[in-house]
Amino acid sequence: MSDAVDVLYANARVATLADGYGIIDDGAVAVRAGRIAWVGPRAEAPPASSTHDCGGMWLTPGLVDCHTHVVHAGNRSDEWEARLNGATYEDIARAGGGIMSTVRATRAASEDELLQASLPRIRALLAEGVTTLEIKSGYGLDLDAEAKMLRVARRVGELLPVDVRTTFLGAHALPPEYAGRADDYIDMLCGDMLPALAAQGLVDAVDAFCERIGFSHDQTARVFDVARRLGLPVKLHAEQLSDQGGAALVAQYGGLSADHLEWLSEEGVAAMARAGTVAVLLPGAYYFLRETRMPPLAQLRAAGVPLAVATDCNPGTSPMTSLLLALNMACTLWRLTPLEALRGVTVNAARALGLSDRGTLEAGKRADFALWDIARPADLAYAIGANPCRGVVRAGVWRDRVS
Amino acid sequence: MSDAVDVLYANARVATLADGYGIIDDGAVAVRAGRIAWVGPRAEAPPASSTHDCGGMWLTPGLVDCHTHVVHAGNRSDEWEARLNGATYEDIARAGGGIMSTVRATRAASEDELLQASLPRIRALLAEGVTTLEIKSGYGLDLDAEAKMLRVARRVGELLPVDVRTTFLGAHALPPEYAGRADDYIDMLCGDMLPALAAQGLVDAVDAFCERIGFSHDQTARVFDVARRLGLPVKLHAEQLSDQGGAALVAQYGGLSADHLEWLSEEGVAAMARAGTVAVLLPGAYYFLRETRMPPLAQLRAAGVPLAVATDCNPGTSPMTSLLLALNMACTLWRLTPLEALRGVTVNAARALGLSDRGTLEAGKRADFALWDIARPADLAYAIGANPCRGVVRAGVWRDRVS
Ligand SMILES: [Zn+2]
Ligand SMILES: [Zn+2]
Repeated sequence: MSDAVDVLYANARVATLADGYGIIDDGAVAVRAGRIAWVGPRAEAPPASSTHDCGGMWLTPGLVDCHTHVVHAGNRSDEWEARLNGATYEDIARAGGGIMSTVRATRAASEDELLQASLPRIRALLAEGVTTLEIKSGYGLDLDAEAKMLRVARRVGELLPVDVRTTFLGAHALPPEYAGRADDYIDMLCGDMLPALAAQGLVDAVDAFCERIGFSHDQTARVFDVARRLGLPVKLHAEQLSDQGGAALVAQYGGLSADHLEWLSEEGVAAMARAGTVAVLLPGAYYFLRETRMPPLAQLRAAGVPLAVATDCNPGTSPMTSLLLALNMACTLWRLTPLEALRGVTVNAARALGLSDRGTLEAGKRADFALWDIARPADLAYAIGANPCRGVVRAGVWRDRVS
Repeated sequence: MSDAVDVLYANARVATLADGYGIIDDGAVAVRAGRIAWVGPRAEAPPASSTHDCGGMWLTPGLVDCHTHVVHAGNRSDEWEARLNGATYEDIARAGGGIMSTVRATRAASEDELLQASLPRIRALLAEGVTTLEIKSGYGLDLDAEAKMLRVARRVGELLPVDVRTTFLGAHALPPEYAGRADDYIDMLCGDMLPALAAQGLVDAVDAFCERIGFSHDQTARVFDVARRLGLPVKLHAEQLSDQGGAALVAQYGGLSADHLEWLSEEGVAAMARAGTVAVLLPGAYYFLRETRMPPLAQLRAAGVPLAVATDCNPGTSPMTSLLLALNMACTLWRLTPLEALRGVTVNAARALGLSDRGTLEAGKRADFALWDIARPADLAYAIGANPCRGVVRAGVWRDRVS
C-alpha cells in the first residue's frame, strides 16, 4: 500500500486539456500529496487510500482568472447610471467620477474594509471553479495604498481556497498629486515604490497601462527596466483603445502576456509569437464599453500565439465576477471556439501567469480541478448565467462548491 | 393587537417602484395574510406580531421573468460548438439540429424527466429573486407533448416558491409530421389542441411565432381568434427577424405583450400604445445571435409603451438563466436606464402577464419581494455575474436565498 495514492477521483468524465479537450470517458484522477499522480481510464487506476465518486460528472482543470482588478473599494454604478441618463464623460469627470473615484475609495478604506469589500467578488469567482486568481494593484497609486492593495491580495490567498498571484500596476493612472507630471510619477514609481513593494515580497509580476490616456511607450519601458532589474516578469495592458506598440514592447522584455489587444498590429502579433507572450482576451470590457473592434484573432491563431481569457473584473469597464460569462462572451462576440475559450481559462491562463505547474490534468501537475454538472465541456461556454460547478479540488483538497 | 400585521420587514432601504424607484430610506414593509398591508418609513410602521431585520439591505418587488421557454429537454451546446467550428446552419439542419432537436428531446422525455431537466434552470432564476415566472410550451407541437410541457410548468409552481403563468405556444414551429402543411397544423391546433389544453386548465395565455420562418399573419390571427373565443389573453413573438405586422396584430386583439420587436414599425408602435400592449425586450437573444438591429426604443418611449425585460431562456437563441444579466444587457446593449430595466422586470413584466396584483411594493399588492445586498438599485443592472439576492418573500413567506 505504500505506493497507494491518497485519493482517487473516480467515475468522472475527464477533460485533461493536455491536448485538445483530452477527453477520457469513465476516467479517474489520482492525487498524492497535492499533486496529480495519475490520470486515465478508471479501469486502469492505481490503488488508492480513498475514493471520491464523481457521479459521472465532468472534471476539468481548476479555472485560472489571469487578469483582474478585483481588489478595490467603492462602486461605480452611480456614474454608469448617470451616463445612461445622459451625462457625458466630462460631466462624470467634473463630478469626481471615473477611475479617480475608485482611487479615492481605495485609499480611504482600511485594509480590513478593502478586504471585506473585495471578498464577495472573489467568492463569486471561486464559486465557478476558479482555483488560481491574478489580482492587480493600481487603485492606490502611492506606496502605502498600493502596498495595502497587495497585502489584501495576499490575505485573500490565505483566507480562501485559491492561489493568488499579485501584479503591481502602479502605472495604471496618474494620481492627482502628480497631475501634469507623469514622468515624475514614473520616477517615483521606478525609484521608490516598485523596489519597496518588491522587497516586501508583495509583487509577483509588473504591469502597466500603455495608452494615450495611460502611460507612454517610453514610460512603460522604464517601468519594465526596473522590473527586469528586480527579476520580476512583466505583462501589459496593450492596444486596448489604440495601437501604441505595447505588445511589441512587452514581448521585447519576454513578457508573460499582452492583454486586451483590440488594436494589435501585425508587428505586434509577430513579436508576441517570437517571445511566447500570451494574448489575454478580455471580452467583458469590450462588451461593457460597446466596443466594435475585435482583437485580430485570425492572425493570432495563425502565428501560434496562445490565447487566454479573463474577466478583467474592475468597476469602470468590466464589473464582471463570472469567468464562465467571459467564456461565453469570447465565443459569442469574438467567435472563439468553446475549446479555445476553455484552454484560455486553464492552460493558457496559467501560462499568462508564468505557471507551468497547472492548467492541465496530467501527472506531476498540481491537483487543482473542478467538478461540473454538465453534458459536455462546451456547456461551460454556452450557458449564460448558470453555475454548474459542484466542487473544487485545490492542491489535492476537495471542497463542495464554494458559495 | 387585532390590527397588528403579521410581519414587519424593517431596517430596509425600500424601492417600491410605485413611481420611479420610489425610494424610502430606512423603510419598512408590513405584511398581513400574504399581502402588503403597509409600506413607509420605519418610524411610522404599524405594530407587528414579529419583525424581520433586513440589515439595511435593499427591498424591491420580487422579480418577474415574463418570457421563458425554460421547460425543455436536451441541450444545444453541441450544435452551437459545431457552428463555432465552422458548420453552417444547413450542416446543422442536415444533422438534425435546430429547434427540432429540442422538440425530439422534449417529446421523448417522460414528464418527470422533463421536470428534472428544467429544474436547475428554474432554480437559477429563482436564486436571483424571481417570484413570478412565465413558462411557454412550444417544443411538443402535438397535443400530448404540449400538455406534458404545460403540466410540468404547473408542477414547477407547486414544487418551488414561484408563481408560474403558462403560455401555450403550439404555433412555435411546424412539426415534421406537418411538413408543407402549415395550414393543416393550424387547423388542428385551433380545432383540437388549444381547446383541449384550455379545457384542462393548462393555459393562462396564448402566444405564437409570427415570422417568415414561423407562422404567417393570417395563421396567427386564426390562433388568436380561438384564444378570444376561449377567453384567453394573447401575446406574440413579433418582429424579431423581420416586420410581419405582428405587433399591430396582437394589439388589435388587445394583447398583453408583443415580444422581441427589433423590426417593429411606427405603425406597430402606435397600435401597441393604443392597446396598452407591453413591449417585452429580450436582449439575451439579440446578444446570443449577434443581432445589430435594436428595437425602436425612442419611439416606444415617446409613445408611452411600457417596457418589460425578460430572459427568453431557451436552448437555441438565449441559453440564459439570469434575469439580472438580461437587465445588464438591456442597459449595456440597448441603453435602457437601470430604472427602466428594473421596472421592466417588476411592474411592467407583471403587466405583460396581465397581473395587476404585483410588481410594486404598495398596500394591497401581493407580498412578493426580494432582499438585496447592494449599494443602490442600479447595482442590479450594473454587475455582471453577481447575485446579491439574500432572500425572497413570496406571498408573505420569507426564505433565504434559494440555491
Ligand atoms: Zn485590466
Ligand atoms: Zn421566445
